[in-house]
Amino acid sequence: MKLRHVVLFGFENGPDRAAIANVVRRFAALQTSVPGVDAFESGENCSPEGLHQGHSHAFVLTFSSAEARDAYLTHPEHVAFANWVKPFLASTTVVDYWTEGASAP
Amino acid sequence: MKLRHVVLFGFENGPDRAAIANVVRRFAALQTSVPGVDAFESGENCSPEGLHQGHSHAFVLTFSSAEARDAYLTHPEHVAFANWVKPFLASTTVVDYWTEGASAP
Repeated sequence: MKLRHVVLFGFENGPDRAAIANVVRRFAALQTSVPGVDAFESGENCSPEGLHQGHSHAFVLTFSSAEARDAYLTHPEHVAFANWVKPFLASTTVVDYWTEGASAP
Repeated sequence: MKLRHVVLFGFENGPDRAAIANVVRRFAALQTSVPGVDAFESGENCSPEGLHQGHSHAFVLTFSSAEARDAYLTHPEHVAFANWVKPFLASTTVVDYWTEGASAP
């Protein structure tokens, strides 16, 4: 099983594309600056269902243990990113889960 | 690139484990009753961050095209599930994204 760390962001003040691209870039950089991130992916919401609850971007990190996830959360690079990004955000949702019901890798 | 369909659920009336297990089972069954679902995984929230915004379960479906995702959304089996599950839910968030920034499959 893998531990998925799902982060959804919605941004203040509408679509300032350059600021959002910077957030995405800095978030993605954590996969190299913090040890233990097995996989990283992100993308912009394209759901036609209208249930995004204000979130426009998704980030999914994969860890192989709760210890690796915890070490990521408390790593100075992650803490610095979290503090830096906060003023840009209108909404944040984070759900982690173990891939119990996975049908494919 | 893959199209991820991220669904977060929070349930009414607290943790009725049997009812929740039934929702998870019926949701998982859609991967076989609806064509075009390349992968399915789900799990219960275990994030220590307290940013789940009331969501306790995550479901992530993978599609290879927007057409496959759209066909899933409008498929009678999905529509029936969505109508059936609604009364159980206190919160629902759905974000789809193309895996632009993926570092691993």
